[in-house]
Amino acid sequence: MKKLINDPADVVAEAVAGFGAAHADLVVVSHDPTFVRRAEGPTPGRVAIVSGGGSGHEPLHAGFVGYGMLSAAVPGPVFTSPTPDPILAATSAVDGGAGVLYIVKNYTGDVLNFETAADLAEADGITVESVLVDDDVAVKDSLFTAGRRGVAGTVVVEKIAGASAERGDDLATVAALARRAVAATRSMGVALAAGTVPHAGEPGFMLGDDEIEFGVGIHGEPGRERMPLEPVDAIVERLLSAVTDDLGVAAGDRVLLFVNGMGGTPSIELYIAYRRAGELLSEQGVTVARSLVGDYVTSLEMQGLSITVTRLDDELTELWDAPVETAALRRGR
Amino acid sequence: MKKLINDPADVVAEAVAGFGAAHADLVVVSHDPTFVRRAEGPTPGRVAIVSGGGSGHEPLHAGFVGYGMLSAAVPGPVFTSPTPDPILAATSAVDGGAGVLYIVKNYTGDVLNFETAADLAEADGITVESVLVDDDVAVKDSLFTAGRRGVAGTVVVEKIAGASAERGDDLATVAALARRAVAATRSMGVALAAGTVPHAGEPGFMLGDDEIEFGVGIHGEPGRERMPLEPVDAIVERLLSAVTDDLGVAAGDRVLLFVNGMGGTPSIELYIAYRRAGELLSEQGVTVARSLVGDYVTSLEMQGLSITVTRLDDELTELWDAPVETAALRRGR
Repeated sequence: MKKLINDPADVVAEAVAGFGAAHADLVVVSHDPTFVRRAEGPTPGRVAIVSGGGSGHEPLHAGFVGYGMLSAAVPGPVFTSPTPDPILAATSAVDGGAGVLYIVKNYTGDVLNFETAADLAEADGITVESVLVDDDVAVKDSLFTAGRRGVAGTVVVEKIAGASAERGDDLATVAALARRAVAATRSMGVALAAGTVPHAGEPGFMLGDDEIEFGVGIHGEPGRERMPLEPVDAIVERLLSAVTDDLGVAAGDRVLLFVNGMGGTPSIELYIAYRRAGELLSEQGVTVARSLVGDYVTSLEMQGLSITVTRLDDELTELWDAPVETAALRRGR
Repeated sequence: MKKLINDPADVVAEAVAGFGAAHADLVVVSHDPTFVRRAEGPTPGRVAIVSGGGSGHEPLHAGFVGYGMLSAAVPGPVFTSPTPDPILAATSAVDGGAGVLYIVKNYTGDVLNFETAADLAEADGITVESVLVDDDVAVKDSLFTAGRRGVAGTVVVEKIAGASAERGDDLATVAALARRAVAATRSMGVALAAGTVPHAGEPGFMLGDDEIEFGVGIHGEPGRERMPLEPVDAIVERLLSAVTDDLGVAAGDRVLLFVNGMGGTPSIELYIAYRRAGELLSEQGVTVARSLVGDYVTSLEMQGLSITVTRLDDELTELWDAPVETAALRRGR
């Protein structure tokens, strides 16, 4: 597997340096320890939001640092949780005295390291609340996870919480809204081919020429089953029904429909899938009130996609629509 | 090669339908003939801009339809020029009486079909000017092309021209600024692996395990040479020097540096490349005044990237910075 890299050991540091250089209007990069924070310093009295996790899922999380979303992102090594030190350093750098919300994808390493960082931050006098994202309906308990995995729905949670913090809500309110977003969000993915971790040099898993991994995780973890490739309309129907059944979507609901590319899927395929998912929801009497289509939570160059549905109420819609200025998501203020 | 599609013959129609559904706030889709136009109708007295070409390069062009950029995009079949009919229909749909600028990538089919459409439009009383984009320094004359190919720099030209039209410039001025953007822009790309056209079912070309196509085109056309894979810093140095030598970039210049992903390249690799390109320009006394990093002109799921440099003056900078609201590029107004 060829890659456009130098030494595999330098991938994250060099990518973060490039990100900082390309987006110097939005972010400042710290290199030792490694984290990315908003260019402007903390606003006194404003809740800060920190997320992070293994690299390889870009633009998650650094691509969502900026006005109306994250205060800082902490990228670990590829597919590996960051340690507590950089999380703590990011926390101290962005705290404005009103507390810090951690948004953590539900993987054992992330959960432990963010917990430790929270303890250390509290010892330093910084109030921390944590929200776990576990939107993947594919499997319970998996490689690296007790309970459900956190996947593409993390973007929705970060956007909702970020808008809440930006409008000046207190820490309890921001955390409650983030939890409401988690409760309203479900996802499931499919892969046609795995991505390759740079230092591994080989794809994370191998599939046959006509085989797909249905319910795949964003680190290439196994899903519900390996099955034959079908027309995408049939795959979308399977993914969407798994998601909406679990979420209990019913006629009359208004939803955000999010089709996420895993990194190596052409844009036209994502839109073909979006089209069918939207048709299916309409047929069920569900209103697709908002949409998002693109590569937002990737798995290196994995070929595949995921479907995320968030049930919207008026407040979640307002927070989703609020202005945001980040490298990967922008909406005018 | 597996794909998330239904019938290969329906790929473009289904993708365009999905695009229209996902971005109904920005665009309206016409299905027969196929084109995508801005949701709001033409503004009387405002110059309209139409671009298009074969599909498979998304988000180019439909992703750039909206405020401050294109008035309409005409997607042909994958890697195949649209015929004059949909170009003419798009032209008629967006003309506001002040004329229409065509932005055409320099491929024989595109050039011929946009010329024919321009003749038909003129016969209908619509004034048309055309600007050819030929930013690829890799080769002169190639498969499908007499002269240089039009590649990722097209995004820059569409942004500059769109901002000019949006501020109310007349057709001659919009065309002149588009030509100034073309004259100030050069690109070159590299591929590690080809994309697969849906109805072909096999990759457009095959490379060895340690081989790259240096100077590749966005349809997988051959470049300058096949060579062994090197660390990305060395590849970036080769690409950048080809681009800056041709453009005649010199110390004291201010440039836009654009690292474009071809579709199947992880975001971290694009940022690693951006980092090195920025360092090299700085070492030469060139100021990287603006940046763009991401998948903007793709070749399905091709693994590779291109580097584009535009020499900026004050007016081009102002037009680059102007507000834009499209599916793939947004900056607040």
